[in-house]
Amino acid sequence: MTPGRFRLLATSGGARRATLELAHGSVETPAFMPVGTSATVKALTPRDLRETGTQIVLSNTYHLWLRPGRETLLAAGGLHRFMAWDRPILTDSGGFQIFSLESRRTLDDDGVTFRSHLDGSLHRFTPENVLGFQEALGVDIAMVLDECIKLPATPAAVGDSVRRTTVWARRAAQTWRRGPTALFAIVQGGLDEGARARSAAELVALDTTGYAIGGLSVGETRAEMAHVARFTAAQLPPDKPRYLMGVGTVRDLIAGIDCGIDMFDCVYPTRSGRHGRALTRSGELNLYNAGFTRDFGPLDPTCSCEVCATYSRAYLAHLFRAQELLGMRLLSYHNVCVLEALMRDARAAIDADAWAAFRAANDAGT
Amino acid sequence: MTPGRFRLLATSGGARRATLELAHGSVETPAFMPVGTSATVKALTPRDLRETGTQIVLSNTYHLWLRPGRETLLAAGGLHRFMAWDRPILTDSGGFQIFSLESRRTLDDDGVTFRSHLDGSLHRFTPENVLGFQEALGVDIAMVLDECIKLPATPAAVGDSVRRTTVWARRAAQTWRRGPTALFAIVQGGLDEGARARSAAELVALDTTGYAIGGLSVGETRAEMAHVARFTAAQLPPDKPRYLMGVGTVRDLIAGIDCGIDMFDCVYPTRSGRHGRALTRSGELNLYNAGFTRDFGPLDPTCSCEVCATYSRAYLAHLFRAQELLGMRLLSYHNVCVLEALMRDARAAIDADAWAAFRAANDAGT
Repeated sequence: MTPGRFRLLATSGGARRATLELAHGSVETPAFMPVGTSATVKALTPRDLRETGTQIVLSNTYHLWLRPGRETLLAAGGLHRFMAWDRPILTDSGGFQIFSLESRRTLDDDGVTFRSHLDGSLHRFTPENVLGFQEALGVDIAMVLDECIKLPATPAAVGDSVRRTTVWARRAAQTWRRGPTALFAIVQGGLDEGARARSAAELVALDTTGYAIGGLSVGETRAEMAHVARFTAAQLPPDKPRYLMGVGTVRDLIAGIDCGIDMFDCVYPTRSGRHGRALTRSGELNLYNAGFTRDFGPLDPTCSCEVCATYSRAYLAHLFRAQELLGMRLLSYHNVCVLEALMRDARAAIDADAWAAFRAANDAGT
Repeated sequence: MTPGRFRLLATSGGARRATLELAHGSVETPAFMPVGTSATVKALTPRDLRETGTQIVLSNTYHLWLRPGRETLLAAGGLHRFMAWDRPILTDSGGFQIFSLESRRTLDDDGVTFRSHLDGSLHRFTPENVLGFQEALGVDIAMVLDECIKLPATPAAVGDSVRRTTVWARRAAQTWRRGPTALFAIVQGGLDEGARARSAAELVALDTTGYAIGGLSVGETRAEMAHVARFTAAQLPPDKPRYLMGVGTVRDLIAGIDCGIDMFDCVYPTRSGRHGRALTRSGELNLYNAGFTRDFGPLDPTCSCEVCATYSRAYLAHLFRAQELLGMRLLSYHNVCVLEALMRDARAAIDADAWAAFRAANDAGT
């Protein structure tokens, strides 16, 4: 196992099939990463996640830094031991969270100073200390600190964000230990092709393990996202993994794979699950709909997960109406299963050079 | 399997060891029943419950009647199928809940009319329709509708409650189908020995499957509860199961078994678990205590459950501080495991005629 080694196994249309070797195991791509912001994928255990077919989870530097904090995580022996998950972990850098804080942060070229949303305490992130934190936690993939801007943005704001993201990525790459923790840089540039191309070129020169496409899934249209993702993916080296951040839904995952993206993350399956919305490949079901209260069929007849094998729609609808915790748990589990099964089937379709048919069969989903 | 057949296997001191045959399987007693008020033991799946060693769960007529309601439960094929639990279920009659409603109910000798706490709709319970509901649901043990009074109570109120409870139990016994659903009557009488003896004698004459001791664990002292439980248990036939309602804690379970009680239920393990309190045989741990944030030992070193084998106190403390659902789930699971293991060990101690030593070793718990 060589951490960061990426082996391209097959392509079919625009879709890629590969294996990414990481410190805690290999990830077969295309891969979807459930989000475990605070060292837990909400309501699910590591055993649940293994059952869903999850290969790698995402956690978040900003949240972990504030709580439980570096000292606790180091004393625990790292993030894997702390959360009892022995497969790969990617940690986002916290850039997205910090730039969402707006009035609570001050940006300079060296880094960013911010106040905790929990207790107002003052903290400072630099490209170096954010990477150092992730390496100390022993995660499989660290993300560089980036400047993520809101859309729409002025050309000047886009230009500033690209410039600062490159400078920070360069500093991160210089401090990177090139040990068990792989490093991904994050391409910014809003919806502007020139800015995206410049950002990609500058980051590719740094020779990090892989590249993420950031600053999307932040309010632009689906067509805009697909266009920018496809354009940006084409700027990235074919022999390195590509990660589209914050995606997504069944449709967006299919569109992303079609652009040659290898990795995805999103809170969507677990957040939807906590709000009574069940994912299927052909659309979302809202369990609060009156029609489900006497529907004794399985949640999703096409799904082979334990929830669909065990409970009826009527029972799940009852749990949500009664505000029972079990409903949130079961629907989160099912929703992650749906996306993991989608990725498994997508991988098989690419292996069989049948991507176009698979895409056509699945792009009507949520 | 003869539903309701009770075989006394051993005694040791005041403690009894028996097997109670029910429609969905045998229950080894002494037994603790986790509470699944609304057709779910909060945050736990049937699979979890089997792992904890749970043999039988309690659900609640009042809550099920209001939501999801009779029609849905019948259409589902009964309560077992609805909640996907294939082991025995006991349903409380709803008497306790209705008498807690106070201003929302009107009592007459024939039954009780009440308004739903959910939507204000008007409902009526009689001894007959409450039992009919439970039988239609296909539960293993139905409880008679009783009048449960608050303590302290006047002698007149205690007398009224005993009288009405007997009349209602007699009507229930007359309508009881004596099929797969066993029937337990509920001894009332507050803290008064005469009233308890009268209630027990009147109910024993009805020859129901078993007898519950109701109206305790409602605010009296621990000594009062133990005294009344012991006195009342002695009024009940030795060849039928005895159930002490609403108990409990490690200490109260030990005290109850010592009185010759066979069955118990309580929300305590799951409610405590949702509030960050972990049960152990030697006391409760509050996971919000600062001392746990860097404690990487197991939650309860004497416990062999999956939570104790997998996670540290520090991680569980983090989950509660971060208000993560997983914390409530994991602690509920552990707490039920602790009580189920306690009962397993108690049964083994009685089998070995070593009850006194077991009681002495465990009566310091929560």
